[in-house]
Amino acid sequence: MKMIDHCRALAKFTQEPGFTTRTFLSPPMHGVHAYLREWMERAGMAVHVDAAGNLRGRFGGEGAPFWIGSHLDTVPRAGAFDGILGVVMAIALVERVQPAFPVEVVGFSEEEGVRFGVPFIGSRALIGDAGPDLLAKCDPTGVTVAGAIREYGLDPAGVPDAEVKTPARGYLEFHIEQGPVLESLDLPLGVVDAIAGLSRIIVEFEGHANHAGTTPMALRRDALVGAAEWITCVERIGQSVEGLVATVGRINAEPGAANVIPGCVRATLDVRHSADAVRKSALERLIVCAREIAARRGLTCSHRELLDQPACAMDPGLVADVERAVVATGQKVHRMTSGAGHDAMIMARRMPAAMLFLRSPGGLSHHPDEDVLPEDVAAAMAVGRQFLLNLE
Amino acid sequence: MKMIDHCRALAKFTQEPGFTTRTFLSPPMHGVHAYLREWMERAGMAVHVDAAGNLRGRFGGEGAPFWIGSHLDTVPRAGAFDGILGVVMAIALVERVQPAFPVEVVGFSEEEGVRFGVPFIGSRALIGDAGPDLLAKCDPTGVTVAGAIREYGLDPAGVPDAEVKTPARGYLEFHIEQGPVLESLDLPLGVVDAIAGLSRIIVEFEGHANHAGTTPMALRRDALVGAAEWITCVERIGQSVEGLVATVGRINAEPGAANVIPGCVRATLDVRHSADAVRKSALERLIVCAREIAARRGLTCSHRELLDQPACAMDPGLVADVERAVVATGQKVHRMTSGAGHDAMIMARRMPAAMLFLRSPGGLSHHPDEDVLPEDVAAAMAVGRQFLLNLE
Repeated sequence: MKMIDHCRALAKFTQEPGFTTRTFLSPPMHGVHAYLREWMERAGMAVHVDAAGNLRGRFGGEGAPFWIGSHLDTVPRAGAFDGILGVVMAIALVERVQPAFPVEVVGFSEEEGVRFGVPFIGSRALIGDAGPDLLAKCDPTGVTVAGAIREYGLDPAGVPDAEVKTPARGYLEFHIEQGPVLESLDLPLGVVDAIAGLSRIIVEFEGHANHAGTTPMALRRDALVGAAEWITCVERIGQSVEGLVATVGRINAEPGAANVIPGCVRATLDVRHSADAVRKSALERLIVCAREIAARRGLTCSHRELLDQPACAMDPGLVADVERAVVATGQKVHRMTSGAGHDAMIMARRMPAAMLFLRSPGGLSHHPDEDVLPEDVAAAMAVGRQFLLNLE
Repeated sequence: MKMIDHCRALAKFTQEPGFTTRTFLSPPMHGVHAYLREWMERAGMAVHVDAAGNLRGRFGGEGAPFWIGSHLDTVPRAGAFDGILGVVMAIALVERVQPAFPVEVVGFSEEEGVRFGVPFIGSRALIGDAGPDLLAKCDPTGVTVAGAIREYGLDPAGVPDAEVKTPARGYLEFHIEQGPVLESLDLPLGVVDAIAGLSRIIVEFEGHANHAGTTPMALRRDALVGAAEWITCVERIGQSVEGLVATVGRINAEPGAANVIPGCVRATLDVRHSADAVRKSALERLIVCAREIAARRGLTCSHRELLDQPACAMDPGLVADVERAVVATGQKVHRMTSGAGHDAMIMARRMPAAMLFLRSPGGLSHHPDEDVLPEDVAAAMAVGRQFLLNLE
């Protein structure tokens, strides 16, 4: 069975019929675990699900293993490849290469942050960063992480035992790019050398709500026009620095009636760059810009930090190993920054980590039409095979 | 009892405790009708509630009456003066002046358009424009206008009898300005010479939703940045023409997540001016502007008309009569356009109509803190008294 077909089959394990929606340890995860466990055991692995819900398969004997994996959860109404393709490829690689050294394949229970509003629950447990605070987080129905683990049939008291306490040679993650860069360059693969840092804030512009018919233009304090002027600045500043991305993804204007001048607007700002100093300076410029626009318009402006996540460099030695494998398979090396967070960034806190991106057709991600090309999967498998052979 | 105290007492008849919310023939309207009916009868009027729910009080004998009135319904969480102050003043004027000619006081059942999404149900019934289509409109719970009339204890079959079929001398409406113009001019009163025409459309910008971290600035088709650029144009074009107002009051960006580039934005546009040609030309410029921005950004742009309401001139003779009364009371005449629609604009289709605005402190309207100054009410009452004496 082809890897893409495995992913399509696994996409049918879902909380929402007709879509692929599979959050942390939701009931359909049982089906995914059973499906992959059977295959992993056939491939020669010793398989268990740890107390954080990670599916783990150990191949080979004693000694420090090399880790390969990705995540098994999805966003609501997801595609069939985000995360799970990396697990499927990891299993297929072990099955085909039968490496001469220990390999541990991992399918993380949670990466997307959907159910509890915190991402990376699976990989955080693996590096010993899933303490009582994380286990006490509640989903919208009031179930805690610990409760969800219990409901799934696992024992949350065992979460500390999920931590990797023995030496590891490194971690490699295959993942779809989730963006348009490789496609725009006409390349199948990208070697990730860093995961961008991320700042996220909510900006609030406050003016004065008033009747849209009776308030002359000159007597308005329209919070939405102020926010709109600022959003055009966000784009301009985002475009002004190489590698920077700046996005307003959510906007809310109150009271939100066609005949009322908006008195209050709240908007999210998401800024990312591989260099933390560049990101922080852009964020600062954008906050100053919002304040200046507000002051000029008689609005008030405030902001609240939601996230400040430092950039994470991949391990230079491991990145070079991946590049060597890319070259050995006759392909072109393209280094890139990942604009999205990945489990590799958590694993990097415990062991050398690297990632290989596969081109995303149409740049599509977190969407039922998300796709991957069979020839790109074949190219990535060739790289993975070569990488493992070089490790021996 | 002072007029402001009457309004505050009447504000307590509400669907929502702690606020003033009173839509078309909602249960608290019974209290308003009973309160005012008792007072109107004391003032010498013959009172009835017509089948469209309008409270009507006839003063004096045979002959063509002069009409004075406004509306009794409110927006959700309204102030205490919008509409009902005009009815209270009408009753007080008749009570104090005891005119030598017939006067009909009317408290319209509906002007705000809240419950059924269509405004002016009361005044439309009075001019014979409340046909089967209007009576079949549904509120969000599925109750029709006809059903609401029946639930209130009236007979919708009688709506055609609510029409004024006999001659009328004219209609005068006292209303708070609902805007900041009179306050900015330090004037208590404004004589309305026209009600602005209104265009309302929904504009949709469609681009491509994508991951905010993985999509470089140069490869984006961000619908929100396009909409934001356009919103700044709406302000600029609104400011460029005397008397024009242009507002984006509602905006919705999809999918609406902090880490996703908005793929689709819908925004309302509300454009008003006393000259229909000016309004239509501004609307046309704004649509062209939206299309140009969209084309330059690789977005698509479409729009849908929600409202196209022509401007309505008040009766020049009646406006002059009101101005004469203003001058006679020693006050300064200020002519103005009403940016908001009013029952006077419906009544103008059947009889000469005019309006007198009272200053709105802080320009506040449709808000619990909406207010009116006692001295402005006294000034307006003096004008009303003089106006009625001049009519004799």
